[in-house]
Amino acid sequence: MGDGGGRLGPIDHIGVAVASLDRALAFWRDALGAPAGPPEEVASEGVRVAFLPLGESRIELLEALGDDSPVARFIARKGEGIHHVCLRVADLKTALEDLKRRGAEIVPPEIRIGAGGRRIAFVHPRSTGGVLLELKEVP
Amino acid sequence: MGDGGGRLGPIDHIGVAVASLDRALAFWRDALGAPAGPPEEVASEGVRVAFLPLGESRIELLEALGDDSPVARFIARKGEGIHHVCLRVADLKTALEDLKRRGAEIVPPEIRIGAGGRRIAFVHPRSTGGVLLELKEVP
Repeated sequence: MGDGGGRLGPIDHIGVAVASLDRALAFWRDALGAPAGPPEEVASEGVRVAFLPLGESRIELLEALGDDSPVARFIARKGEGIHHVCLRVADLKTALEDLKRRGAEIVPPEIRIGAGGRRIAFVHPRSTGGVLLELKEVP
Repeated sequence: MGDGGGRLGPIDHIGVAVASLDRALAFWRDALGAPAGPPEEVASEGVRVAFLPLGESRIELLEALGDDSPVARFIARKGEGIHHVCLRVADLKTALEDLKRRGAEIVPPEIRIGAGGRRIAFVHPRSTGGVLLELKEVP
């Protein structure tokens, strides 16, 4: 049995692809009352993002900056909705070795550098039961 | 601005609709190393469920017991994947009043009794940016 690189952490965040960040904030922040930071542009990922901290996790609302953004392509194919779920792992390399030995499919390139300089990886939805799963290393 | 019935809690769980609980457990439990209780049958909801506690949240893997189960209909329409996200709220009635006043659409019947006798409600994906959102009252 794999052990998630020693320890499998809590849910770090849920990424939601939305057509309009303003309209999504009208629900999540204004109607539901979730705390929300000001929207930030992340040009390298082609998105405008708002973060909603909820306990030890957060919801990330993702709006595409252009039609060639991965978020725009996701919405064109599947509609608005949950784009990915991110879990924290203590040791990403060991976790990925466990996963590959068990036949799970890692999306190339295997290890990337994400926000805050964290090492991250993505497991393909084919391996997880339909969930694009991000693993973020938090030693 | 709504305030989630006084306090908006953390993510309670993420429900994932899977075609095969055994195959999903081979990934989440055996390869990834998530803790998992034994699968339970919840006949009233038409599902077999496995719970994976992760920090203050958990992932619920949902397998349909028959073709007329809501989970079977979801998979037939959209494929395997995330079925709903559940947040805790302190006061469900107040939260629903805030949401409706802001134009959010609550799935009827508005308040139901869920697992453990908790009062729950569902917000329609049309209002949230594509996410079927469960609210669970934890006073």
